[in-house]
Amino acid sequence: MASILESEIREQPAALERLLKTQSGRAREAGHLLARHDIRFIVIAARGSSGNAARYAQYVLGRAHRVPVALATPSLYTIYGQPPRLDGALVLAISQSGSSPDIVSVLEEGRRQGRPTIALTNTPGSAVAAAADVVLPLEAGEERSVAASKTYSNSIGAIALLFSVFTEDKVAADELHRMPEFVASQIDLSLREVDGLALNDARSAAIIGRGVTYTTAHEIALKIRELSGILVEAWSPADLRHGPIAALVTGSPVIGVAPPGPAQASVLEMLAELRGRGANTIAIAEDRPPVDDVLRIVGDVPEWLSPLTAVVPGQVAALRVAELRGLDVDRPAGLQKVTLTR
Amino acid sequence: MASILESEIREQPAALERLLKTQSGRAREAGHLLARHDIRFIVIAARGSSGNAARYAQYVLGRAHRVPVALATPSLYTIYGQPPRLDGALVLAISQSGSSPDIVSVLEEGRRQGRPTIALTNTPGSAVAAAADVVLPLEAGEERSVAASKTYSNSIGAIALLFSVFTEDKVAADELHRMPEFVASQIDLSLREVDGLALNDARSAAIIGRGVTYTTAHEIALKIRELSGILVEAWSPADLRHGPIAALVTGSPVIGVAPPGPAQASVLEMLAELRGRGANTIAIAEDRPPVDDVLRIVGDVPEWLSPLTAVVPGQVAALRVAELRGLDVDRPAGLQKVTLTR
Repeated sequence: MASILESEIREQPAALERLLKTQSGRAREAGHLLARHDIRFIVIAARGSSGNAARYAQYVLGRAHRVPVALATPSLYTIYGQPPRLDGALVLAISQSGSSPDIVSVLEEGRRQGRPTIALTNTPGSAVAAAADVVLPLEAGEERSVAASKTYSNSIGAIALLFSVFTEDKVAADELHRMPEFVASQIDLSLREVDGLALNDARSAAIIGRGVTYTTAHEIALKIRELSGILVEAWSPADLRHGPIAALVTGSPVIGVAPPGPAQASVLEMLAELRGRGANTIAIAEDRPPVDDVLRIVGDVPEWLSPLTAVVPGQVAALRVAELRGLDVDRPAGLQKVTLTR
Repeated sequence: MASILESEIREQPAALERLLKTQSGRAREAGHLLARHDIRFIVIAARGSSGNAARYAQYVLGRAHRVPVALATPSLYTIYGQPPRLDGALVLAISQSGSSPDIVSVLEEGRRQGRPTIALTNTPGSAVAAAADVVLPLEAGEERSVAASKTYSNSIGAIALLFSVFTEDKVAADELHRMPEFVASQIDLSLREVDGLALNDARSAAIIGRGVTYTTAHEIALKIRELSGILVEAWSPADLRHGPIAALVTGSPVIGVAPPGPAQASVLEMLAELRGRGANTIAIAEDRPPVDDVLRIVGDVPEWLSPLTAVVPGQVAALRVAELRGLDVDRPAGLQKVTLTR
C-alpha cells in the first residue's frame, strides 16, 4: 500500500490549482494593504519547511518590491524581549500549523507597531492567522504525513501568487497558472524514474543551489534528512568553498539543483569541481550536464517557478530511500507535526 | 611542534586588545556616519567565518539600534542583476580578506544608492575596504592558517566595539575592555582541559545554540568540519525540532553552547531531551548541568560577549581532533584561504 506521504505528494498539482483558483482575491487584498504603507523592507518569520519557503520569498518578494527581505530572529522578540523597531517593514509569517508561539510573537509585534502583517497558513483558525491583517489560506487540505509536501509546495505557490499580484505582471501570472500541469507531469516523471538507490548506501550527502534554487536545495535536504536519517546539508557554492567543502566525503552523493536560469552555471561549475574530487555528482536538470547521474525535470518552467517542480525528484528520492531502509515514512522517528517553541 | 593554528588561537587575547586599543576612534567615526542618516534596518554581506560573525551582528547591532538586521542575498546583486532599493539601510560588510567580489558588489550598490557603508576587514588595502565609507581594520595581524581563529574573534570584537560606541553604554564598554583577559584565561583553561577525544570516534555531530549563542554554535561547527572532516551542523532548538532531529544518531555527540543568559534554558532543555534519546551530550558551560560531559568556560562573562570565550573550547576541540586523526591542521584538504565567488 502506498504511504500517506506518497498520496500527498501526488495531491500537489490539485492543491496548487485550488490555491490559485480560490486565493487570487486574498492576494489582491494583501496588495491593497501594502499600497497603503511605505514598505522599505520585509521581515519574514518561519521555521522548518516554511523557513525554506521563506528563502524563496527572499528572492521573489525582494524582486517584486525591490526591497531587502530579512528573516526574523524570533528570540529577540521572545527570550530577549527586545523586538526591533519595524518602521518601514512589512511583516510576513509562514506557518502551516499556524501555532508556533515565536512566529505569533513576531506578527503581534508588527501589529502593535502599526505595520502591515500577512500570514500564509494552512490553518485559517490558528493563532498566526488571528494575529495578521490579511490571511492567505494555503488551501493544501489536511496534511497527515509528518513530512510536509503539499503544504510546502502551496507555500511556494502562495508566494508566487503574491509576486504575480504585487507586480501586476501578466506574463508571470500566466506562467504561474500553467504550473499545476507542469507539477503533475513532474510527479509522473519522478515517480517513474527516481528509485532512491543512489542515496541508499550514503551516510551523508550535500545539496547545492543558489539564488532561487537555494530554496529547493534546502527543502530537499530537510526531506531526505527527516525521512531517511541520512545527514544532508544544503549549500550555496560560495558558502561551501568557505570551509564545509573539506567535509565532503569522496564517493558521497552531491545533488546540484540546476534548472535553466541565472543560477545554473554556478551550480554546474561546483558539481564539476566536486566530481573531479571524487564525489558522486547528481544534477536535477532538464538536459544532460556532465555529471554521474541526472534526476530529470520537465522543460519550459521558468527558473522563478522551478521550486515547484525541481523539489519533486527530491521528495520522491527521500520517500524511496526511506522505503528501501524499511522506515515508516509517515511517522519519522522522533518528529512531531507541530512544534511549539517560544 | 605546535601548529600555526594553535599559535594563532593563543594570539587571540593580544589581537583583541590591539583592536580595542587602536580602533575606538574608527568605531566613533562609524557612529557619526550613522547619526547623519535615518537608519531603518541593517544589511550585512559576509560569508564563511565572517558570515558567522554576521549572525552575532544580527543580535548585537539589532539591539543597539533596535532595527532588524538582514543578511544580504548577494546573488540578487550579481547573477540576477536586481539589487534591492536600500532606502533606510546601513550596509555593513565583514570580510577578513576583503577580496570576495560578491561582498564588494553589495557594498558598491549601497554606495551607488547613497547609503552609509561600513567594512570590517583584516585587509585595509582590499577591494571591500575601498568600497566603504568607513573601514574598521580588524587588527588581527596576518593569519596564516587556513582556518580562521583570531580574525573571527576580532570580527566579533569589532561588532561588540561598534555596539558599545553606538549605544554609548559605559557598562558595555567596560565589559568589553575586560575581555582580552577573560579570553586569555579561557585559552589556558581549554588548552589544558580539551582533548578532542569525545569527537574522535564521531562521523557526525550537532552543535546547538540560540540567540547570541547561535553564532558560537555555527562557528564551532564550521571549525570542526573544516579541520576534521566530521559532518557537523549547527541548529537552534526550534529549527532542530522541525525535522533535522530525526537524523541525529544515537550515541553521536551533541554540543550545546550554554553560557549563563537568556538563551541558556532553551539549549539545556534540548540537551536533556536529546540525552533521553541516547545522544552523547556535551555542554559548553560555566557550571555542571546534567549532561554527559562539560567543556568549561570562565565565569563572569556577560552573555553578549560570550562568543569571544565560548568559541575557544570549540576551536581547541577542532584542533585536537584533527591532530588525533593525523590531519594537517594548517592546510585542511581542499580549502583555500581566500574564495572568489561572483
